[in-house]
Amino acid sequence: MLAEIITIGDEILIGQIVDTNSAWMAQKLNLAGIKVKQISSVSDDKQHILDSLKDASQRADIILITGGLGPTKDDITKRTLAEYFKVGLRTDSGALENVKRIFAKHSSPMLEVNIRQAEVLENCTTLLNSNGTAPGMWIENNGKTYVSMPGVPFEMMYMMEELVIPKIKVSFKLPSIVHHTILTAGIGESMLADKILSIEEALPPHIGLAYLPKLGMVRLRLSGRGLEIDALQKEIESYATQIVQTVKEFVIIEADVPIEKALLDMMASRGLTLSTAESCTGGFISHLLTKHAGCSKVFIGGAVSYSNNLKSTMLSVSEETIYKFGAVSEETVLEMARGAINAYCSDYSVAVTGIAGPDGGTNDKPVGTVWIAVASKTKSISRKFQFGNKRAQNIERSAINALFLLHKLVKEELV
Amino acid sequence: MLAEIITIGDEILIGQIVDTNSAWMAQKLNLAGIKVKQISSVSDDKQHILDSLKDASQRADIILITGGLGPTKDDITKRTLAEYFKVGLRTDSGALENVKRIFAKHSSPMLEVNIRQAEVLENCTTLLNSNGTAPGMWIENNGKTYVSMPGVPFEMMYMMEELVIPKIKVSFKLPSIVHHTILTAGIGESMLADKILSIEEALPPHIGLAYLPKLGMVRLRLSGRGLEIDALQKEIESYATQIVQTVKEFVIIEADVPIEKALLDMMASRGLTLSTAESCTGGFISHLLTKHAGCSKVFIGGAVSYSNNLKSTMLSVSEETIYKFGAVSEETVLEMARGAINAYCSDYSVAVTGIAGPDGGTNDKPVGTVWIAVASKTKSISRKFQFGNKRAQNIERSAINALFLLHKLVKEELV
Repeated sequence: MLAEIITIGDEILIGQIVDTNSAWMAQKLNLAGIKVKQISSVSDDKQHILDSLKDASQRADIILITGGLGPTKDDITKRTLAEYFKVGLRTDSGALENVKRIFAKHSSPMLEVNIRQAEVLENCTTLLNSNGTAPGMWIENNGKTYVSMPGVPFEMMYMMEELVIPKIKVSFKLPSIVHHTILTAGIGESMLADKILSIEEALPPHIGLAYLPKLGMVRLRLSGRGLEIDALQKEIESYATQIVQTVKEFVIIEADVPIEKALLDMMASRGLTLSTAESCTGGFISHLLTKHAGCSKVFIGGAVSYSNNLKSTMLSVSEETIYKFGAVSEETVLEMARGAINAYCSDYSVAVTGIAGPDGGTNDKPVGTVWIAVASKTKSISRKFQFGNKRAQNIERSAINALFLLHKLVKEELV
Repeated sequence: MLAEIITIGDEILIGQIVDTNSAWMAQKLNLAGIKVKQISSVSDDKQHILDSLKDASQRADIILITGGLGPTKDDITKRTLAEYFKVGLRTDSGALENVKRIFAKHSSPMLEVNIRQAEVLENCTTLLNSNGTAPGMWIENNGKTYVSMPGVPFEMMYMMEELVIPKIKVSFKLPSIVHHTILTAGIGESMLADKILSIEEALPPHIGLAYLPKLGMVRLRLSGRGLEIDALQKEIESYATQIVQTVKEFVIIEADVPIEKALLDMMASRGLTLSTAESCTGGFISHLLTKHAGCSKVFIGGAVSYSNNLKSTMLSVSEETIYKFGAVSEETVLEMARGAINAYCSDYSVAVTGIAGPDGGTNDKPVGTVWIAVASKTKSISRKFQFGNKRAQNIERSAINALFLLHKLVKEELV
């Protein structure tokens, strides 16, 4: 089963927005067992849209189209689709109700263009958009399925999860597919592959293993297809257990979640609290933690002690330590971590100080030198890292490694 | 002049990575006066790559290809390109030197696959990659230009800026193009368009005006083409001045930079310092500031006071204020801003407290209620916002509005 994604709109072609929709959709399709053959971004131009639909339908079974449905643009997109399928437009009563509901809620006057949002192709099944005015459309034509969705990410996401993926599963009678993700950190992809080689080689043909590396972490994903879902689940789990046994010390969690979420969940279930003391990461660790709803059960806050002076006043790092060893040193980072625990009364803390670059390096401490410390009420661990000279990457890598070290310490102390 | 972008690699098609390269390239091409017709992501598959090259060459003059050049994959990509152009491969001595240099630097053993990275198409001009082992290739064939670049973002970016864009400008004798960007905030796109309608209507045909909205800000971009660059520059500037005069109170800066960079530069040039007091934004404002090298001249640090307790201990918000008015209130946010100035001795501060959601809302204070305060040593301003119920958006919108309010206050006090 092959799918293609077509995004319509000049915003992507002039580089004004990054196409995050397609990657998200590709992930969801992949998890449902559908392979994406091609992703194409095309302009708001009739002939270009017609050509891309024709090309895609020659390669794939399902063509997913996003964008081009906003009130100023839906005219051309919908008329082009109508021409492609040789059908007319009709006003969908459910979609019209939805438009009216949204305008009533915001007490805004409804214009002619807003009412036209409720027009859909004659030959479609309407997909109601509970988060916006533009309805989606499901069209079956010449043995191929076409789905048109709005380009606003959260409108598309909701429609895809609630309506499109379930409808695809039913329509195409897809085989059951079971995934099991293992998040690892602190080990490279090739080293990891080497350690679990014999397990990978013993996998039966209906179970695959994918390596998904990202910034110092590797997600391992076991995917199996079959008809007997319970048996498949058990089979996948037994391989997952073998992998986890083999590379135990690098496993963060057996789930497809980011590392900070794994950490927050582990700490929340034990009622543990966390504070941060960030210098070169400048609030990025706090930001990663606070992206997640419910983080306040664990994360109480912390210091962004960017200047040396604030390291002393906020975290009680002694001025002598900074003078003697420098702001980027093991001594300073340990005092930062300890200072956070004392000042903010948390069970754990994480501290980072380093030279993010591109300037500020010395011979002794080149750009990319980063010290990380994690502490509990009774223990502190520090580690030095030497990253490269890209500021954004140094900030991200520092944060991920800090979260990894902290996860390790918390896990150890739970045993 | 039309271009197309083809990205090669399964990582994008399985949704493992978001294709940020294409938007970045499209921006750079657009600024150079080249329109991008289509962006396509295709798999590591010979026939698929061949088809996409043929299709793209029928629509565009320049075809930019990224990805597929890593040591485990370059074999298929380069052989496919060789087949497409009906040429062989040769080892490029400059590229080989470069591979050797990189391996020597990391003292890693060089494998056969690494040496093969230096192979390029017989008919290409080699584009040396100073940030990695895979060289780029510039190929002219049948009146079309093809450029193959590595997919690693910073390798591609460097190659594009230093080699490809300059070479395109020379090869295609592009007309001079002058851009002038005006960053505005605090006013919607349609309202802005209304205010500058008469200026826009008076623009000559060789000057265009684009509206680029993003999260509560709108960038206005004047773009002109011509042969006399000095005259063009003057002409564009006179229109820019008219626009700025008309919507003065909403103009952040006349440059294509993010709002926090405009703020940092304005404050740095006056030797002013800044601290933050973040609750619901959870470090995101600090992160935005510290993304920029040199921010330490202005940004000294701040508190991520997520828990109520830390609002009191870090920022001296009185417990009575929190008890009486709540953590999300004008009284609390003003004490936070004032507390940051006092505790961290900065010239300015910015404070945010709100309900980011999706939970935690009440009838009085629904999800999306956010209070922002900005303060100087002598003045404080606070403002309430009511955003929606998407956590990530609420955090971003809060940060942007906080930076906008702060920018306004600093600017006012400079007069």
